[in-house]
Amino acid sequence: MSVKVLINGYGSIGKRVADAVSIQDDMEVIGVTKTKPDFEARLAVEKGYKLFVAIPDKERVKSFEDAGIPVEGTILDIIEEADIVVDGAPKKIGKQNLENIYKPHKVKAILQGGEKAKDVEDNFNALWSYNRCYGKDYVRVVSCNTTGLCRILYAINSVADIKKARVVLVRRAADPNDDKTGPINAITPNPVTVPSHHGPDVVSVIPEFEGKILTSAVIVPTTLMHQHTLMVEVEGNISRDDVLDAIKKTPRIITVKAEEGFTSTAKIIEYGRDLGRLRYDINELVVWEESVNVLENEIFLMQAVHQESIVVPENIDCIRAMLQMEDDNFKSIKKTNKAMGIQ
Amino acid sequence: MSVKVLINGYGSIGKRVADAVSIQDDMEVIGVTKTKPDFEARLAVEKGYKLFVAIPDKERVKSFEDAGIPVEGTILDIIEEADIVVDGAPKKIGKQNLENIYKPHKVKAILQGGEKAKDVEDNFNALWSYNRCYGKDYVRVVSCNTTGLCRILYAINSVADIKKARVVLVRRAADPNDDKTGPINAITPNPVTVPSHHGPDVVSVIPEFEGKILTSAVIVPTTLMHQHTLMVEVEGNISRDDVLDAIKKTPRIITVKAEEGFTSTAKIIEYGRDLGRLRYDINELVVWEESVNVLENEIFLMQAVHQESIVVPENIDCIRAMLQMEDDNFKSIKKTNKAMGIQ
Repeated sequence: MSVKVLINGYGSIGKRVADAVSIQDDMEVIGVTKTKPDFEARLAVEKGYKLFVAIPDKERVKSFEDAGIPVEGTILDIIEEADIVVDGAPKKIGKQNLENIYKPHKVKAILQGGEKAKDVEDNFNALWSYNRCYGKDYVRVVSCNTTGLCRILYAINSVADIKKARVVLVRRAADPNDDKTGPINAITPNPVTVPSHHGPDVVSVIPEFEGKILTSAVIVPTTLMHQHTLMVEVEGNISRDDVLDAIKKTPRIITVKAEEGFTSTAKIIEYGRDLGRLRYDINELVVWEESVNVLENEIFLMQAVHQESIVVPENIDCIRAMLQMEDDNFKSIKKTNKAMGIQ
Repeated sequence: MSVKVLINGYGSIGKRVADAVSIQDDMEVIGVTKTKPDFEARLAVEKGYKLFVAIPDKERVKSFEDAGIPVEGTILDIIEEADIVVDGAPKKIGKQNLENIYKPHKVKAILQGGEKAKDVEDNFNALWSYNRCYGKDYVRVVSCNTTGLCRILYAINSVADIKKARVVLVRRAADPNDDKTGPINAITPNPVTVPSHHGPDVVSVIPEFEGKILTSAVIVPTTLMHQHTLMVEVEGNISRDDVLDAIKKTPRIITVKAEEGFTSTAKIIEYGRDLGRLRYDINELVVWEESVNVLENEIFLMQAVHQESIVVPENIDCIRAMLQMEDDNFKSIKKTNKAMGIQ
């Protein structure tokens, strides 16, 4: 028995979640939507997905027909068949979809990290808030950066009491397919105020970290991955080995060594390409082993986040939690990882 | 009465120090050296500097003659006329020059930040170690990043007792004229180990900060400026206004507002161009006003460092200290700044 998933917005996140749903044995994609008849829409059809027009409007439907891309109808023709919708719409549109489509049609929905915590019932990370989101109707899977932070804080929290975490995020300026966004030669404080919103976003998943996580962020001219430097003060003594061991035991984190050639985010992506990963996605958080250090009750480390794909397995687990398909988060994580071929 | 300064290595730093020396009324450039007859060498002659070949070798001298660039001889023909040499040679060559040329010819010398602290008598920053370097023979002006950190820590230290400073440096990958160095699309932890050497380098100038400053660094694809995020724990209470006031009172620091258009390092450099600064140099450390914040005895801020020019006024003050031309560091700073038209 497969649950029926509709992907509303077959873009960067949507197309990846569609592919990840398709390879699970307990869920299926009943349709995907697009607003424009572009190459992604054509590929969706070629891959066998049923394509619907995201905006229920005759002109829109005609534009797909004119482009020779067959559609099955509009989102309104499929929405009520879905057990759940994964919203992959751009920032702020997700909230509009929630109010205008999902709630009126009484369909459960997952929004992405570009939406606000206050607009949903709860905020999801598979390690931290699976149980809390169990059976809920409207949940947000937090952003790529927040997901990365939740994972590493889970690892550290498993072996130490976190007193204060300070994080500086060096963010990629644009995704690889984005040919409009800059900068191409500048470092942009974003936000220019400190602390940034990333700390509170972690707290939306892990309320007990209120006041314990301080973040700041800059944007730099790269497209591949985000990078974080963490400085985490903990109570009592802990060894570097304990920290590294905890990191290695945590699902969806991999460690790499600069010594072995992983000198930058570019090398991590090359690894994803060499592995034959679809779209070279690195769904795992990546921690540089050499960077892990403990000095006077403070843990230091550097990590990298593949912004396009880190949240994809979280969306799968979120579906299972919201539809009450599996009550053990670690069983869901394991199942998702196995199907996706990730660690 | 002008002291005689020889610039050994008319490159990124050397050419700027030459121009800065030339506009002071108490020092003069008696010559500059180059290893290759390139456009910088030609411009040096066109600007009126006496050009010498940095490597005393007949073939080298001939290569300048063949290129039609007149030279006055080699470094050995001018070295003993100098009261002091400012070394502008690439990393590690400075140390070789110290041992092979400056010491044997008993000429005082300033090395740059690419050399090691242990190879010189002391390490210079005009705010912190002017008096300590007074009359010394072999001194290093610390690197651009270290100079920026020394200035901001001076400002903070003037109003608070620093308990622990944590800094993440986001470094420009290459200078604007460097057409070989990357990355052009990656974030590179450099060093991948935490903490980085920048903390100890600050301690070479300010020994009382031993154990109190922890730094880490990444390299990103930009050429314009470095960016630092500081998180500085202090003893007792302090207000944001006190911090901002201290920053504004400190020489060679300027503050900018994102609100006024200074949204990135690119905008800061555009400001330097609009001001008509030679080579658009921003010799001052630049602090984003909006980033300055105080939370629970911890100061947060973001700053930018123009890697090519921040150390130039420090070299001028270092000359005055080593040649005992002015015993008050603030008088030297003021004199240098006035001549250079900087704050």
